[in-house]
Amino acid sequence: MIELEVQTNKRSELVDVTAILAEAVARLEIKEGLVHVWCPHTTAGITVNEAADPDVAADIADSLERIVPRDAGYRHREGNADGHVKASLLGSSVVLPVEAGSLALGTWQGVFFGEFDGPRRRRLQLRVVSS
Amino acid sequence: MIELEVQTNKRSELVDVTAILAEAVARLEIKEGLVHVWCPHTTAGITVNEAADPDVAADIADSLERIVPRDAGYRHREGNADGHVKASLLGSSVVLPVEAGSLALGTWQGVFFGEFDGPRRRRLQLRVVSS
Amino acid sequence: MIELEVQTNKRSELVDVTAILAEAVARLEIKEGLVHVWCPHTTAGITVNEAADPDVAADIADSLERIVPRDAGYRHREGNADGHVKASLLGSSVVLPVEAGSLALGTWQGVFFGEFDGPRRRRLQLRVVSS
Repeated sequence: MIELEVQTNKRSELVDVTAILAEAVARLEIKEGLVHVWCPHTTAGITVNEAADPDVAADIADSLERIVPRDAGYRHREGNADGHVKASLLGSSVVLPVEAGSLALGTWQGVFFGEFDGPRRRRLQLRVVSS
Repeated sequence: MIELEVQTNKRSELVDVTAILAEAVARLEIKEGLVHVWCPHTTAGITVNEAADPDVAADIADSLERIVPRDAGYRHREGNADGHVKASLLGSSVVLPVEAGSLALGTWQGVFFGEFDGPRRRRLQLRVVSS
Repeated sequence: MIELEVQTNKRSELVDVTAILAEAVARLEIKEGLVHVWCPHTTAGITVNEAADPDVAADIADSLERIVPRDAGYRHREGNADGHVKASLLGSSVVLPVEAGSLALGTWQGVFFGEFDGPRRRRLQLRVVSS
């Protein structure tokens, strides 16, 4: 298992982690297979989407704000209930394909860390599924 | 494959299944690796989120009610169309990390069965991904 | 890896791909295990839900339209920002169980390709996770 650090800078944002995952995949020395990316936090998640235009990641974060308002009479009293809901909508793990030793994403795809209660120093865990 | 039973008690709720999954993982005798949790139902799902404060699970269920209203002119005529939509927003499977024979969740994480057309007796299936 | 083609017919719809995935699983000659289905696109996703009544898939597509409106002041200027958001809500991959050489879905379950910027010719990738 490889653990990576992600520094987030806003309360709610999608941070492109494609490059740090690609570097970690290279260290794992997998030829062909699948890797599992795990977010061990409960107000953060992982998603795959377009990385070419950073406006897409901003639109996803903004849309989640609209779909899950910061204040909506939540029971959880820590002020981050919306972050927990957003994390479950996005999901806390992904399984990514690897080919020829590299992440085998689609042309426009990148991997994003969804921060919903930042800014914070966060962690991601990478494990080999099959190789 | 290990099949587990989950009794739900409300039409819509998140049930903490961390303990029954942890017990099943122990039975599988995996040392290090990943397990796949599959929900074979179409008005239920699986998610990972905070287990320390049960209000978080209630907030997620309530938020899904707000995002996907019970009545919204659905075509499907069985009265549970909202449950199907919620299931797809949450997802019907997760892959969980295992270390030293135990589920290796983050400090605050638990695994939840999302019931969206209960109460019912439901099933979960656990399979070894890699060990 | 097996790559499959999916022709979509609307801007936004869920296309039942259970049969083409089942046929591809048969070609992989897995006995027992898990397969990974990957959508290499960023305005499309994958979900598992009821396949018996096609109204369910239509309700999911319609609900996503309501939750993520086509126009909502998005920054991304290609007119498909809503499609990117919907893709992240649905997810871009699933891991499916295989038993006795066949997809081992629940009684009512099917696998759906979520198109959110069609119609287009799309691709799906199928990889063995474990067998």
